[in-house]
Amino acid sequence: MTATAPIGIFDSGVGGLTVLRAIRARLPALPLVYLGDTARVPYGSRSPETVRRYAVEGGRFLLERQVQMVVVACNTVSAVALDALCDALPVPVIGVVEPGAEAAVAATRSGRIGIIGTETTIASRAYEEAIRNRLPTARTLARPCPLLVPLAEQGWTDNDVARAALAHYLEDLRREEIDTLVLGCTHYPLFKPLLADLLGPGVRLVDSAEATATVVATRLGAPTGEPVEPTFYLTDLPHTFSEVAARFLGGPVRHVFQVRY
Amino acid sequence: MTATAPIGIFDSGVGGLTVLRAIRARLPALPLVYLGDTARVPYGSRSPETVRRYAVEGGRFLLERQVQMVVVACNTVSAVALDALCDALPVPVIGVVEPGAEAAVAATRSGRIGIIGTETTIASRAYEEAIRNRLPTARTLARPCPLLVPLAEQGWTDNDVARAALAHYLEDLRREEIDTLVLGCTHYPLFKPLLADLLGPGVRLVDSAEATATVVATRLGAPTGEPVEPTFYLTDLPHTFSEVAARFLGGPVRHVFQVRY
Repeated sequence: MTATAPIGIFDSGVGGLTVLRAIRARLPALPLVYLGDTARVPYGSRSPETVRRYAVEGGRFLLERQVQMVVVACNTVSAVALDALCDALPVPVIGVVEPGAEAAVAATRSGRIGIIGTETTIASRAYEEAIRNRLPTARTLARPCPLLVPLAEQGWTDNDVARAALAHYLEDLRREEIDTLVLGCTHYPLFKPLLADLLGPGVRLVDSAEATATVVATRLGAPTGEPVEPTFYLTDLPHTFSEVAARFLGGPVRHVFQVRY
Repeated sequence: MTATAPIGIFDSGVGGLTVLRAIRARLPALPLVYLGDTARVPYGSRSPETVRRYAVEGGRFLLERQVQMVVVACNTVSAVALDALCDALPVPVIGVVEPGAEAAVAATRSGRIGIIGTETTIASRAYEEAIRNRLPTARTLARPCPLLVPLAEQGWTDNDVARAALAHYLEDLRREEIDTLVLGCTHYPLFKPLLADLLGPGVRLVDSAEATATVVATRLGAPTGEPVEPTFYLTDLPHTFSEVAARFLGGPVRHVFQVRY
């Protein structure tokens, strides 16, 4: 029996653990190598040029780990650096924007789709283009929500501060009567209960992590065998790391290595 | 007449512009070279080891610009990397923690001093030690406030979200009846009106930027001559840069160069 080559999951930090978790739930026997650039997170407020440089550096690190595919968990990287990664790496590269857009188009009935994400993701208009390519009549409204990442990392996903911040961010989206909202950042699924409460049952929440895991499973097929533990590489290990990471992974993070590249 | 050598001001991002502004108000003819590591900001959630590495890299860049002194505007760097910078650089290095602690001790009457800052600054206990060295009977209470930097960068310094966040962060400090609060992060002076409102007139707010500018002016004396424009080096220029920087500097930022080191 030949050992299955691992797939690499690249993220700017710990938010991509939600993507790892979704992939692992579908493909437990597939070896996963996670790289989070915690020494330079967040990417969502940086220029596209800088995000591209960081992404290619991370992709090359994963390639040295013999990965057969790179999944880009970070929405910002997927939005502005996927081409650069595809050019730089000789393995398939899958981002979260196309699967997320596909899921949004499948979910909407009215064609009115909201998108929330980081400043750089929203400025790129990547989700809007991916949605319009599939559904030219779609009416999209995108809104950057820079405070949601720090709120999620602090664990404030359902308190009065989170509620007040989301009320500001969702104001336009509610007025536009969207029926679907793309959660265009790995951190945002943590706000699902609050978002559902604020937007009501008429708005479907599209989580790119789930949609991306489905694409990966379809592309690779499920390897058979015993479940394997992922390996985690991080460029920094701040003292709050374990606590924050557990919030995203839904359990303790083991096999963690700090790296420089 | 010999030209005055510039002083370097190092910061993790744009918050240090408050320190530059305070120095410039006192010493308008002193050439200032500002370096903001906007490609890797924020430092306040990173490990002390990573902050030290970034700080030394930044310090060396400034040294190549022939600076006669480095002022560390960033509280996190001042708290955990000042020794590393002093070891690495052959010019005087001044941080914001000692001047801030000095100002807090001068301001307090009851000896009950609160400190707010980033996670890494608070975990270092640098302000607490600097205060106790000067006033051994001081009773200090320190609180990390990770959401305040993103709030300030978004321009939400006096709305309902900022108010709700500060209410959480200040809860213990109010109960302890502090009479002085150290604003231990370059971003926090932007919350002064809200802090004054929430804490009342009995609590004095200590701004390390002002205290540090006084120390620099005392050490250097004021060079005579025409006012000179500062030079700004940034490691990234995201599209929101000008707007965010203007909020901290109180006016437009000119002579900006993007650099890599």
